[in-house]
Amino acid sequence: MASSWVPDMDSASDFSLANIPFGIISTPDDPKPHAAVAIGSYALDLKVLCASTDLTQIFPGTRGLAEAFSQPALNAFAEMGRAVHRQVRAGIQDLLSTATAHPSVLRDNTALRARALLPQSTVKMHLPMAIGDYTDFYAGYHHAHAVGVMFRGPDNALQPNYLHLPVGYHGRTSSVVVSGTPVRRPVGQILLPPPPPPPADPAEAAQQPPPPPSRPVTAPSRKLDMELELGCFLGGAGNEMGTAVPVDGADEHIFGYVLLNDWSARDVQTWEYVPLGPFNGKNFATTVSPWVVPADALEPFRARGIENATELQGYLREEREDNVFDIRLEVDLTTAEGDTTTICRTSSRNLVWSFPQMIAHHTLGGCPMRAGDLLGSGTISGPGGVDERGSLLEMTENGKKEVLLAGMDARTFLKDGDTVTLRGFCGADGARVGFGACRGRIYSAVER
Amino acid sequence: MASSWVPDMDSASDFSLANIPFGIISTPDDPKPHAAVAIGSYALDLKVLCASTDLTQIFPGTRGLAEAFSQPALNAFAEMGRAVHRQVRAGIQDLLSTATAHPSVLRDNTALRARALLPQSTVKMHLPMAIGDYTDFYAGYHHAHAVGVMFRGPDNALQPNYLHLPVGYHGRTSSVVVSGTPVRRPVGQILLPPPPPPPADPAEAAQQPPPPPSRPVTAPSRKLDMELELGCFLGGAGNEMGTAVPVDGADEHIFGYVLLNDWSARDVQTWEYVPLGPFNGKNFATTVSPWVVPADALEPFRARGIENATELQGYLREEREDNVFDIRLEVDLTTAEGDTTTICRTSSRNLVWSFPQMIAHHTLGGCPMRAGDLLGSGTISGPGGVDERGSLLEMTENGKKEVLLAGMDARTFLKDGDTVTLRGFCGADGARVGFGACRGRIYSAVER
Ligand SMILES: [Ca+2]
Ligand SMILES: [Ca+2]
Ligand SMILES: [Mg+2]
Ligand SMILES: [Mg+2]
Ligand code: NI
Repeated sequence: MASSWVPDMDSASDFSLANIPFGIISTPDDPKPHAAVAIGSYALDLKVLCASTDLTQIFPGTRGLAEAFSQPALNAFAEMGRAVHRQVRAGIQDLLSTATAHPSVLRDNTALRARALLPQSTVKMHLPMAIGDYTDFYAGYHHAHAVGVMFRGPDNALQPNYLHLPVGYHGRTSSVVVSGTPVRRPVGQILLPPPPPPPADPAEAAQQPPPPPSRPVTAPSRKLDMELELGCFLGGAGNEMGTAVPVDGADEHIFGYVLLNDWSARDVQTWEYVPLGPFNGKNFATTVSPWVVPADALEPFRARGIENATELQGYLREEREDNVFDIRLEVDLTTAEGDTTTICRTSSRNLVWSFPQMIAHHTLGGCPMRAGDLLGSGTISGPGGVDERGSLLEMTENGKKEVLLAGMDARTFLKDGDTVTLRGFCGADGARVGFGACRGRIYSAVER
Repeated sequence: MASSWVPDMDSASDFSLANIPFGIISTPDDPKPHAAVAIGSYALDLKVLCASTDLTQIFPGTRGLAEAFSQPALNAFAEMGRAVHRQVRAGIQDLLSTATAHPSVLRDNTALRARALLPQSTVKMHLPMAIGDYTDFYAGYHHAHAVGVMFRGPDNALQPNYLHLPVGYHGRTSSVVVSGTPVRRPVGQILLPPPPPPPADPAEAAQQPPPPPSRPVTAPSRKLDMELELGCFLGGAGNEMGTAVPVDGADEHIFGYVLLNDWSARDVQTWEYVPLGPFNGKNFATTVSPWVVPADALEPFRARGIENATELQGYLREEREDNVFDIRLEVDLTTAEGDTTTICRTSSRNLVWSFPQMIAHHTLGGCPMRAGDLLGSGTISGPGGVDERGSLLEMTENGKKEVLLAGMDARTFLKDGDTVTLRGFCGADGARVGFGACRGRIYSAVER
């Protein structure tokens, strides 16, 4: 990878010249949210760049970019499709390269650099897309298996449909928020656990009143959890209602990727989810990282996912076998006291379904997908021990064991004041393709 | 109710002066979708009206109406809240009354009438709202009970949570379409039923190969169904993320109501829905009626819903007992040959949860609701016989019995070429508050 003239490039930065992720910023000079890319510790303001530059020179053949990059979401750009994204990314990579073919545009243009190249610490990040629909899948095989073992035992761990189709559910778009947004512990309806068994001495037991039956209460969730997921934003023109997207062409419908924390209230979910699926246990907040890593930037990091020995239906049979990405993923938990523990390290290759398979399945019946739609991978866990698990539910076996933390602390589920940070990157130092932080801090519930 | 000067007012019209439902139209003169109200067999073009009239005279104190009514969806108007909706509806009722206080504005203004009052047959209807999120509930008690009996027997018909909270799931907004939009039979992954038992003669049975196991296939749904529902569009400013809407104030968050057909592929749903709920079995199409009946127009038709003896959590306890509406509902099935049978007659009072209760539950954990969000009631069935059932699933006991149709025809589930029409109205002749038709015709699947 070429080197960049951008100051202070750190070889450990997620935002090397090999990345060029897109986001929505507002700045002290322009509080209206608009588009940017991340490069090292800087944001390149694309609205300012477009307003000051003859774009046909740098992005020949692309139209409407200045308009698209002035919007408060990346949807218009995402709609332009992979070919345009490729060209724009390549054009920006050239502009930011030490050996740029257009040095006068930005590298040697001190006035424009001062206005367009802004330290990330000085800009505010916004939700990158206007999300039309959000679907959360369940493709993390080791997560699904571990949770299944916990609730149904090892013989029935996976539901009968699990290896035949990418199981998923429709999520809530209005509560998808950008990294850094406070997350309030949800109040919910919760079925209190059955009371403890009576004392062993039969004489004593006979004197006890009969145990009260299980009953629901309305209370702050006692089992607030995180879920480590990869998010996928769709781009392109979308499929018309009534038509399906073939699995082998589905990659062309992908704009880019983010990290996604699907906050989950386990106790709320347990009581509500039969028979129609998760609802209030999930819809109070979902956090995404602010920079959308373009699909092309992840191409060099393709890998094979989890092997699925099931004979797949034709519409799910993908030609390529390296249909997922090997992204190193980490979860940090920071206590209110400021002690940080990395509680999970795994890889996004631990998926049994690829995003193209999810898209092919989602559209099989003709459901229309649109640029800006968000897909979640499902919780990603590794095959190994508790330090590879993408949720506290798994790490603590639903609260039975504690996860030990720095600062002599421990958790079963999240406490008020805890901050969860997801991180992910691929590639060698100096050419990393990473996501930045996907972070949320828990605030105490509002009593109802 | 006052009489209207609008020509050809039919006393059986859904769109009497007592109604004034809002919709989005395009016209031969103005193909850009914009707002209108229905009156009798006419649409009053609100964009034309606003452009030609001093609105401060008719709607004193309201601002931004001309802009809102020029939009391709009613969201901006819905956001203005109930007080504005009340005033605008009252102003329009005055303008359209024989004894209008402002005869020169429209009644006696032949030129404006010619441009603004258009036969409904000459305008095209569009989806009335830009739907941010769509949630489908399950509040039709008799439906939930009948389906429960069918799959789990009478002792476990209702799930333990059913009477404690309004069960619901997040639906797909991208496939919500306006009445008249063709509905293509979805292809889906379906678990074939187990093979028939071997012949009775043991000698013969021994010669048969062992029966093949159940296996999924990819095929057009064989169990395509409709669901009769009431839809509710939200309005007002919405609740901030992290805050809840109290049940007794929730009515102020409602803009209006439509009929909703939640098309359902039962065989697809059966195989996919454990454990995360309905997905492709529902997301291929949902049809809504085009005119949004304002919440105020239904106020005179309040009724008590289904009694719920469960001790409710405080956040679900509503002060008023007449918390649902008594809307007469009908379902027509028209065959490809053109024979129409009314297969269901019931009332929207057959709900065990009100929309305010659904909103209070939905926001309990802080999930933000926005103007334009759509809630479905769940399938509405009456307590009586098969002719009160809001889905073919119930009428035919999941395909075991046939529903007899006019033209010597019969159905278990829907056939290609069938048209389903939902209708609903309240009130006496000449003052009806109705919804018009919510209609969709089934087109054959595209083979994958
Ligand atoms: Ca999840
Ligand atoms: Ca439904
Ligand atoms: Mg979530
Ligand atoms: Mg539907
Ligand atoms: Ni007046």
